[in-house]
Amino acid sequence: MARWTKLGLVAGAGALPQRIAATCAERGEPIHVIRLEKIADEAMKAFPGDECGIAEFGKIIRKLKMEGCDAVVLAGAVRRPNFASLKPDWRGAALLPKLAAAAAKGDGAVLAALVETLESEGLLVVGAEEIIKDLAAPEGPLGRLSPGEDDLADMKKAAAVIRALGPFDIGQGAVVAGGLVLAVEAAEGTDAMLDRCALLPSAMRGGAERRGVLVKRPRPGQELRVDLPAIGVETVKRAHRAGLAGVAVEAGVALVIDAAETGAEADALGLFVYGFTDAEVRAS
Amino acid sequence: MARWTKLGLVAGAGALPQRIAATCAERGEPIHVIRLEKIADEAMKAFPGDECGIAEFGKIIRKLKMEGCDAVVLAGAVRRPNFASLKPDWRGAALLPKLAAAAAKGDGAVLAALVETLESEGLLVVGAEEIIKDLAAPEGPLGRLSPGEDDLADMKKAAAVIRALGPFDIGQGAVVAGGLVLAVEAAEGTDAMLDRCALLPSAMRGGAERRGVLVKRPRPGQELRVDLPAIGVETVKRAHRAGLAGVAVEAGVALVIDAAETGAEADALGLFVYGFTDAEVRAS
Repeated sequence: MARWTKLGLVAGAGALPQRIAATCAERGEPIHVIRLEKIADEAMKAFPGDECGIAEFGKIIRKLKMEGCDAVVLAGAVRRPNFASLKPDWRGAALLPKLAAAAAKGDGAVLAALVETLESEGLLVVGAEEIIKDLAAPEGPLGRLSPGEDDLADMKKAAAVIRALGPFDIGQGAVVAGGLVLAVEAAEGTDAMLDRCALLPSAMRGGAERRGVLVKRPRPGQELRVDLPAIGVETVKRAHRAGLAGVAVEAGVALVIDAAETGAEADALGLFVYGFTDAEVRAS
Repeated sequence: MARWTKLGLVAGAGALPQRIAATCAERGEPIHVIRLEKIADEAMKAFPGDECGIAEFGKIIRKLKMEGCDAVVLAGAVRRPNFASLKPDWRGAALLPKLAAAAAKGDGAVLAALVETLESEGLLVVGAEEIIKDLAAPEGPLGRLSPGEDDLADMKKAAAVIRALGPFDIGQGAVVAGGLVLAVEAAEGTDAMLDRCALLPSAMRGGAERRGVLVKRPRPGQELRVDLPAIGVETVKRAHRAGLAGVAVEAGVALVIDAAETGAEADALGLFVYGFTDAEVRAS
């Protein structure tokens, strides 16, 4: 049984908020969507909800309570807002100094501050994988293919790069091919990182054949209920265009959106999609 | 006095090899250029020299010795070669397994192996800044502008990111704006990294005003005679297009190509160019 009566969904960018809202609708579970202005997808308007600016914390909390929500899920990407152009309400204005300070530490700190605020109002903050049970990446291969020995070495190195970048509040993604770190994700996002890997000379991957692994995992110490690394069909397509051998994510914490379709796409394109454990990438 | 009689120059990509050859020519010092096939700039043909494949170590060493070179400088960028398409001579073939193993660790390891081979042949390997004395970045501001307090904080964070990535043999460059890590350099190079920063929404820099710092410094523990991080006029132009406030490099080790022109360009565009010490970025 769910630990809540009615769920609020604060919707950022990307496909995840829509999946969550659609899943709740299919199950007949009530949901109220807060569409973040200029961030949430247009498709979110199909669900009952309100549009709020990202700094209108008073309005967001009021709307959620008015609709009887006792739990809230934050889903989808929220890039650092431009504090100069925000139009905060009184509640948001009271929190802005705190948020501006958090923003100087990175996106993770902003989201952690939002979670804290919602909890202080008595709302239960839940992770997306609590709503869609099979969203968390399973251990092992998702499709037919498995990583080879070289791929596992690349996977471990990329996982270590992300771990090393944890203190800087970046780095949910990295690409390693034949031992060489091809790309590290910062503010540009995974799609842009893969697109630039596709532009590198194939010699840098160590040859013309398919090689290299995209790894996505949470930053060490990050708030695990929001901003989890996610992959899907589009990730596999882009990894294929970048000439990579496969995609690996931390099992249990990274999210796979549309797992069946993602595995099928990987099979069709000849890539592996693999869920690793932290112990697996720590071993040498 | 120079510690050598005649200098050999193994020329990779970029403007630095040309600067070195031209400087020697101006001084009337003899030089022999090994143009790395498909890598060195066409302009290098203006100097006495030979063209060699990157795996033709036997030929490279033979040519250098035949010309009476007793010292050698490796300058310019050399991206990881495609080992499948190399045409090594007997000497290169003997070294290929070693180089392939080094390549799996990253570009730095390949260059370190090359240095070791040249030294084992009795050649003195010298750094580019030994040839052009004022190539190493000076401490403090290069132009009229100096970094402000926020810029110094961004500079320290970017410097720390590069230090953290040292064990992975990447990361001579990073961009931080308002505390947020916008970009980390891996295989794509500094120019490509700055170009993608220019594509990020200005809100991510924390507003419309010029903000953020590009930092370039050597990886901790890297071979300091080859592959030093370098900046020049083009770096300043691209940092300007990316909306950054300035560029900072580690004084004494990073190189500034055409320092006077670089400082003048920074002044014209309203950016700072700053040489920091390791102690300066370690302090908090």
